[in-house]
Parts: sequence; structure tokens; C-alpha cells
Amino acid sequence: MQTLTASLIIKNASQLVTLHDPKKIGPKGGKAQGELNIIKNGAVAIYGSRIVAVSGTNKLLKSVALTKNARVIDAEKKVVTPGLIDPHTHPVFAGERSGEFEMRIAGKTYLDIAKAGGGINSTVAAVRKASKNVLKENGRKILDRMLTLGTTTVEAKSGYGLTTKDEIKQLQAIKELNEEHEVDLVPTFLGAHEIPPEYKKRPDDYVALVCNEMIPKVSSKELAEFCDVFCEKGVFTPKQTRVILQTAQAFGLKLKLHADEFYNTGGAELAAEFGAVSADHLISVGDEGIHLMHKAGVIPVLLPGTTFYLGLKKEAPTRKMIEKGLPVALATDCNPGSSMTESMQMIMTLACLNYKMSPAEVLTASTINAAFAIDRGNEIGSLSPGKYADMVIWDAGDYREIPYHFGGNMVERVFKKGEMVR
Amino acid sequence: MQTLTASLIIKNASQLVTLHDPKKIGPKGGKAQGELNIIKNGAVAIYGSRIVAVSGTNKLLKSVALTKNARVIDAEKKVVTPGLIDPHTHPVFAGERSGEFEMRIAGKTYLDIAKAGGGINSTVAAVRKASKNVLKENGRKILDRMLTLGTTTVEAKSGYGLTTKDEIKQLQAIKELNEEHEVDLVPTFLGAHEIPPEYKKRPDDYVALVCNEMIPKVSSKELAEFCDVFCEKGVFTPKQTRVILQTAQAFGLKLKLHADEFYNTGGAELAAEFGAVSADHLISVGDEGIHLMHKAGVIPVLLPGTTFYLGLKKEAPTRKMIEKGLPVALATDCNPGSSMTESMQMIMTLACLNYKMSPAEVLTASTINAAFAIDRGNEIGSLSPGKYADMVIWDAGDYREIPYHFGGNMVERVFKKGEMVR
Repeated sequence: MQTLTASLIIKNASQLVTLHDPKKIGPKGGKAQGELNIIKNGAVAIYGSRIVAVSGTNKLLKSVALTKNARVIDAEKKVVTPGLIDPHTHPVFAGERSGEFEMRIAGKTYLDIAKAGGGINSTVAAVRKASKNVLKENGRKILDRMLTLGTTTVEAKSGYGLTTKDEIKQLQAIKELNEEHEVDLVPTFLGAHEIPPEYKKRPDDYVALVCNEMIPKVSSKELAEFCDVFCEKGVFTPKQTRVILQTAQAFGLKLKLHADEFYNTGGAELAAEFGAVSADHLISVGDEGIHLMHKAGVIPVLLPGTTFYLGLKKEAPTRKMIEKGLPVALATDCNPGSSMTESMQMIMTLACLNYKMSPAEVLTASTINAAFAIDRGNEIGSLSPGKYADMVIWDAGDYREIPYHFGGNMVERVFKKGEMVR
Repeated sequence: MQTLTASLIIKNASQLVTLHDPKKIGPKGGKAQGELNIIKNGAVAIYGSRIVAVSGTNKLLKSVALTKNARVIDAEKKVVTPGLIDPHTHPVFAGERSGEFEMRIAGKTYLDIAKAGGGINSTVAAVRKASKNVLKENGRKILDRMLTLGTTTVEAKSGYGLTTKDEIKQLQAIKELNEEHEVDLVPTFLGAHEIPPEYKKRPDDYVALVCNEMIPKVSSKELAEFCDVFCEKGVFTPKQTRVILQTAQAFGLKLKLHADEFYNTGGAELAAEFGAVSADHLISVGDEGIHLMHKAGVIPVLLPGTTFYLGLKKEAPTRKMIEKGLPVALATDCNPGSSMTESMQMIMTLACLNYKMSPAEVLTASTINAAFAIDRGNEIGSLSPGKYADMVIWDAGDYREIPYHFGGNMVERVFKKGEMVR
């Protein structure tokens, strides 16, 4: 038997939830969405930053040699899973909007709130005023909370600057946070998040600015991996979205789309046509959109925190997507207006209760499918030899307790690339 | 100017939310439910376990002398509030019911779940088997989480033993936890939580056991301060409830009632008739019940975590109660079947979003009104000289951020009776 060397072993896990499919490593849709691949009394061996072996504890201990300073952690009666992945967030901003939250509860309309200086434009104004360092401080706090709650990789969007300078400031903050913080960030340029106030009467001029100035600069500075557009009634039309997506693609950016959130505007269809990596929100997606996403391999990223927080009556047709074979991913949509949460655990509970996903499906959606939703499926999202050792030890003996227990934090330990970080 | 002595000062709070009404210290209903009494740049002085002064920072610092080893904490840009109080929980049990959670999401009925060995009877079986020490270990973990989340006093019910011996075992565990843990527990005897399987065909015999054996023993051993009954269709009838309440009252126990949760069975009316301290759940309470509770001074304890977790379409008529002048309190209902959460912060968010309470109203409901709901209104629940120094420093500059931010933990520091415990 070949002997592997390990610098870290986690052993005796009541459930080692690997999410690894030995026949085909890929996102999991349809029936497979609920298949976790659980090793009872499982163990995982790490060398440096990567996983080298996964199996039953007895077998693993026999086949692995320890380095001199190796650490062996006993996870008896504990669940071990991959680190959670949050594939849709807006974590770098300034200010807070609890006043708007209060108004919304009191029954004030979107218009009332905007008149009182609330809404996305209040965040845009605050971000434009803030220095890069203030944005970083705020973002660091959010990433700290995310990590404490078990999230080890996060997609992070710009989209509160809405000028070339301020979008780049946000992306630069994201880049530096990625370098400085334990959590890995995947940067997305979302200059087309909203039409800024100064362009309200000439939105096409703003689209031109996004295409002719922002995307080229963001691309040449290598500040983003993805480009995203808020395609929605009253925001960017499908026609405008198409122009932005074409430009982004030409400049080598991968694509994401805020699609069919409030109205079915054909966002899912556009995402499929352009081969976007993911289409997100999808509350109002239709059958044709689901069909085309499936054909094109677009991953649906659902945001049940947002429907919950906004009190929307309509919810994404989750079971329909899963039954059609789509690999559903989940995300917090962490942002100051419509989903002020850092907790993927909370999102998992909400997806169970409101979207009727099973505990197994939500765990798949928050790990391997979320990894594919940010094009990291080959590096993270499952406990497989060769992948990064991003892992959570849970204060639970059964993985179903993670969404079952709500509003708190069931994490006991978090490992990022083989290092214990919480 | 008289000089007070302080062993601890918290100063410079952006908002010191005292909740103190100088004219009349009492629970806050009607318009007053939203009156927090906020001191900007506020400070609080503590001597030993009690608050000695509350005012603006400059004024307070001038009027207070420090003891030799006194600690001064700067809460700049932070909110300070009383410790949260959770007036309705079932925190001492064995086992977990995540399998039942999974079944419920998959659309299984109450009957399917019971047939599969789930439901309250599964917890009763686990508690009967468990030793007192196991119950304590489980309860301690829950109390640890509650404290971390800012809760400093908790009402704790028995009700999973349903034999004299096992109810006493639960209450004994609660008593010892109260002695050993930083969180203060207020014990409630809930022998009438459910009719145990062995009495299903002769429920009146179980009521007789509760009245003739359990209540006298619990009372003579001084193991409970309150008696509670689950008055509900299919559980205890109003007639049976009346007999139990009469007995409990005769044995010197104060009263609480699980009232009008699924059906309006006249629970609120009974609570009013008996002068209960609180009536809890109240999803189906009618106008007459609200009127009589108001007249009798019964505090409504609402449990929005339970309606959320069970996916109930109906919600307690909260605004009606507040408008009628009732002082609404909130609680987690922490229990393994219908509300597996320790977080009053989460409950506050749910009460805002689903019950349309304002951020100010939910804070009142989780502090001073919750204190009165467990008959501790004169000791805790507001920052007033003479009261215990149970306090939370929040990682927020505005109290509205507490419910606005959801699914995590906004607590920075927790103080219990003047000691920093988190």
C-alpha cells in the first residue's frame, strides 16, 4: 500500500460529508442534488493546503504517515463538510439601511423610501464618498462574520460605485481583501447594478460608459473574473443587457446575470444564450428559461434570504428546477438593502422551509454546486484528494441539524487551505 | 452633588437604550411599546451586581467615584441595551428532531411523523431515558448559545417527562443549571404539556396525576415558580386546564398558559380569569380574549419563530394587541420540535418582518416586557438604578441594526449582574 504523508488529519467524524462523486465530478442536479456521499466514522488527511486522502478512519490511519509537526483532530460525534461557499454577495459597501428596514415594516413604499433618501442610491452615495480603506474595513467585518459562520469562499460584486473611478475603487478593495483575508474572494464587476441618478434620463449613455470605459479598464487591470448585469424591468432591459454581456465576453470576462427576479424579462434565456456560468434570483423564471438553462449548463443561484427579507410572496420554482435536473446553488445575496445577512446556515434553513429543499439538497447547493456557480468546481466544494482543504467541523452529529437549527451558528471549527482559522 | 461609587462604567455609547420610564416602571403597551428612552453618548455606572447611575457620559463621569479596581469600558459608536430576556423556552431535553424537520419539508403530515416515531413523544421517550446529568449537559449547551447571543435571563419549562419522577428530574436539572450557569433561569412546571402515550385513552386520569401528585411535589420541593398548561384542541381542554390552574394556584404557583395557538379555545379568557402572568402563542386569539387580557393585565408572549418554523400561514394579531394597549413580549419558544433556535435576535427580525412590529417595539418586547412576562420587571429588563446590571454592548451604532441584521450575532459583549461573561 502506498503511504501518503499528512500534516493534518481530522478523524472519527460521525459523518464525513464528502459530496464527491467518484464517477463524475460536477455540479449536482436532479436526484443527485440530494446525494451527499457520507462516510461514517470518516477521516480526511491534508498535506499543506490540499486534501490527500478521504476514507473511513481506520483505513485512513493505516495508509497515512504523519509529518513531524502534524496535527490530528478528533471529530467524534461531529459532522465534517467542505467549507460553505457563498456565490452571490455584495459585501463591500458603506453605511447601513436599518432606517429603510424600519420604514418598510411600517408599510412605506419603495417610492416613500427613495424620497426619504433610502434605497440603493443611498448606498451608492455612501460608497462614492468612502475611501477604499473604509470599504475594506467594512468588508473585512463582513468576511470575518462569514468565516465564523463557516463560509470559506465568497463571490464579491462591485456595483455601488457606478462611476468608473468608484467601481474600480470597490474592485480594488475586493482585490486587497482577497489578498489579506483568510476567505477567498471571487471578484465580479457589476457596474450595471443600477442606472445612477445622473444617468436616469439617458440610460443608454450609462450602458455606453459601462461598455466603452468601465469594462475595458476593469479587464486591463484584471480586477474582475466575472461580469454581472441586473437585467430587470426598470433597471437594464434585455437589449441593454445583451450589449453589456457581449462587451464583457469580448474582454474575456465570464458571465453572471441577475435574472428574472421580479418579472420574467427573459433573463434566464439570455444567460443560456451567452453561456453564463450562473443566473441568479430567478423568482419569476418561466419553463422556457429553465429548459434553456439546463441545455446550456447555466447554474441557477437562488437567494431565499432576499425573498424572506423583502417579504415577497412569490418564490423561485425550486422543485421544478431540481426535477428538470438543474444543479441549484444557494447564496446569501449579502447586501445592505434586501438581504443583510452573512449566514449561509440561515440561507440553508430558509431554503428548506420556504423553497422545500431537503437538508441534503441545501448542503449540495451550498458547497459543490456553489463552487461550480463561481467556476471553482475543480478546486473546492467537495472533500476530494487534490482539492483545497476548506472544511468545517460542525457542532452536530447529523448534517440535517445544520439547517434544522436556525438563527445561530453550528460551526465548531473552520479550516481554510489546511489552516485552522476559526 | 452626591458622589456614587462604581466598580464598572460603560461610557460613550452612541445609544444607551435604557427602556426606563421614570414616571411608571411597568411593561410597555400601546404607543409606549415603541418608546425606548435613548441617551445619546450615554453611560451607565455599576457597583457590584447592580446599576447605580445612568445618564449622559460627561454628567455621569462627574458624579461617580471609581473603586480601586474599577473597569471603564468605552462603547464608542456602540449601542448598549439591557440583556435580552427570553420568557418562553423548553431548553432541557434529550435527542434532536432533524429527521422530523426533513420529513416535514418533504410534505409529511403530523400523523406520518408520529408513525415514524417523531413528534413530541420522541422527545418524551428520550428525556425519560436520559439522566439528570445528560439533561443538564444538553441544557448547558443551549444556555451557552443563548448567552453568546445576548440573552441573560430565560424562562425554562419542564414538560418532556410527563411522569412525576421525570418532571422532577427536568426541574431539578433546571434548578442546578440556574445555580451553575451565568444565565438566570425562571423555572416553570409544564407537566400538562401533552397527554403521555400511556394516558391517551384516559386523559382525565393524567390531569388527576398532575393535580394530586405532580403539583404538590413540585411545590413542596420549591422546584417551580410558574405552572403552565398547553390548552389546545387535542391536548388539554379548557375544563381540564381550569382544574390544573386552580390546583397550581392553591399550591402557590404563579400561572402561564399556552393559549389559542392553533384554535381559539378560550385560552386567553382563561388566562385573564385566573390572573395569569402571561398567555403565550395567541395566534388564534379573538377580540374578547384580547379585551380580557388587557383588563386583567395578562402579558401576551408571542413566538414568531414557531409560526416561521412550522410554516403556519396565520400569525398572531400583533398590531391589534399593541393598538389595544397590551404590552407584547417576544420569546424563542426554543424547543426541538417547533422552534429549534436560541436566538432572540432572530426572533426580533421575524417579529419585524412577519408580525410588523417596529425595531423599537421588538426591543421593548425582548427586554422590559419580557421581564414582566416572567414577573421580574422590578429586577431586570431596563437600565435603571437599582436593577441588576444585565447588559449587552452591540456591534452596531443604532439599535435598529439589531433586527435589521439577520441570521448572525450582533453582540459584542454581554454583562450579567455586573460581570463581563462574553
